Amino acid sequence: MARVRVVLINTTHPGNIGATARAMKVMGLTRLHLVTPLHFPHADATALASGADDVLQHARVHESLDGAVEGCGLVLGTSARLRSLSMPQHDARAAAGHALAEAGEYDIAVLFGRERYGLTNEEMQRCHRLVHIPSNPEYGSLNLSQAVQILAYELRLAALGGGGHSEQPLDWTPVDAVQMGRFIEHLEQTLLDVRFLNPAQPKRLMMRLRRLFNRARPDQNEMNILRGILTAAQEASRSGEPFAGE
Amino acid sequence: MARVRVVLINTTHPGNIGATARAMKVMGLTRLHLVTPLHFPHADATALASGADDVLQHARVHESLDGAVEGCGLVLGTSARLRSLSMPQHDARAAAGHALAEAGEYDIAVLFGRERYGLTNEEMQRCHRLVHIPSNPEYGSLNLSQAVQILAYELRLAALGGGGHSEQPLDWTPVDAVQMGRFIEHLEQTLLDVRFLNPAQPKRLMMRLRRLFNRARPDQNEMNILRGILTAAQEASRSGEPFAGE
Repeated sequence: MARVRVVLINTTHPGNIGATARAMKVMGLTRLHLVTPLHFPHADATALASGADDVLQHARVHESLDGAVEGCGLVLGTSARLRSLSMPQHDARAAAGHALAEAGEYDIAVLFGRERYGLTNEEMQRCHRLVHIPSNPEYGSLNLSQAVQILAYELRLAALGGGGHSEQPLDWTPVDAVQMGRFIEHLEQTLLDVRFLNPAQPKRLMMRLRRLFNRARPDQNEMNILRGILTAAQEASRSGEPFAGE
Repeated sequence: MARVRVVLINTTHPGNIGATARAMKVMGLTRLHLVTPLHFPHADATALASGADDVLQHARVHESLDGAVEGCGLVLGTSARLRSLSMPQHDARAAAGHALAEAGEYDIAVLFGRERYGLTNEEMQRCHRLVHIPSNPEYGSLNLSQAVQILAYELRLAALGGGGHSEQPLDWTPVDAVQMGRFIEHLEQTLLDVRFLNPAQPKRLMMRLRRLFNRARPDQNEMNILRGILTAAQEASRSGEPFAGE
């Protein structure tokens, strides 16, 4: 549980930040990260945190998602409904079981989007897995702190062994989100160098590729290989002497 | 679910009644009973109910617990901690399973006590079973509507036949092994072309890369992109004119 961080993105109502701190602490979570909150610190946050003001005081505020997921080997994105995206989706219970099985190895981030519309597509592309909380199909209006409460509850049960999951921990340690970000930048530059990418419209394709490599979750060794391949492709595209031998 | 009622006893803050209505509806519960609420109806209740004002409007207010549990064959009392009482005690998950199994026969009531101190001993004696929600032993301050949210969530999962589901994305069909094999061959040739691969010993590295891409499980579209990238890298390595522009 100590390696799980809750990341709230662009929260509008500071009261929800306070209620989230309380929802976390009551289930034993302490690490709160805020990406560009609209109002924070704020009296409403403090009021609704109740006895969890220590969680608020230690909350870290970030200018972008990058900082909030630094050091995280697994990033989960919460979504009110199943999405038609090419990435694994779990309900809250399965996701908590998976996450706890990995939480010994590296930090885990659980992302929660805005009150009005959740995570953007681009933010979801940054995740390894999506988590949905089963809810009423006719009224899926789950309050932000309630969503955090359910995830925190499932994580606690999984930590107590009550989640019913006996997942094997991964036998490799995936690189963190920052390294993945650097790889994606390197990949983008390489695709421009080999003229695969249309410089005018790189975003959509790069999002697809990030999603693909996030699914693979390369470890440090594999990342080194991938970076080496990119560098070789860049050099070959410059030299134009591909068959010059070793 | 239609036979489950939520009973709030002597609630102090009307906002909690509204948040409870929302927490119920989002999980498909609709029947709210209030025993001597301090303030109801109240603007705070309506505000926090969000789109669940129908649940509030149909809420029934009672002068005593008797009216609220009339017609109920099973009464569950929620408690922040295990009690030394001579009655069956379950955690939220087990309680939800039990309750749903009986809910075909008669109505089920789930009682929630006051914000400050929960149910009185006398109220607990009126219950057939006690339910506790596992929480942080050092900070068990679960907000009323959050407690309702967790129980409602567990009831919904029990009604759906239990949680713990992982789903593959709906529109995602990974390519078959033959296509993956062709891609790996193409990748190997490209890595030779850009002089990344030592032609004497390609096998070990190619096995690693196959494993990596197998984990990602690309679909047809993604495979087309990957093959396109390889072809572009091969052509760039031959032409040596990477910056000729589009």
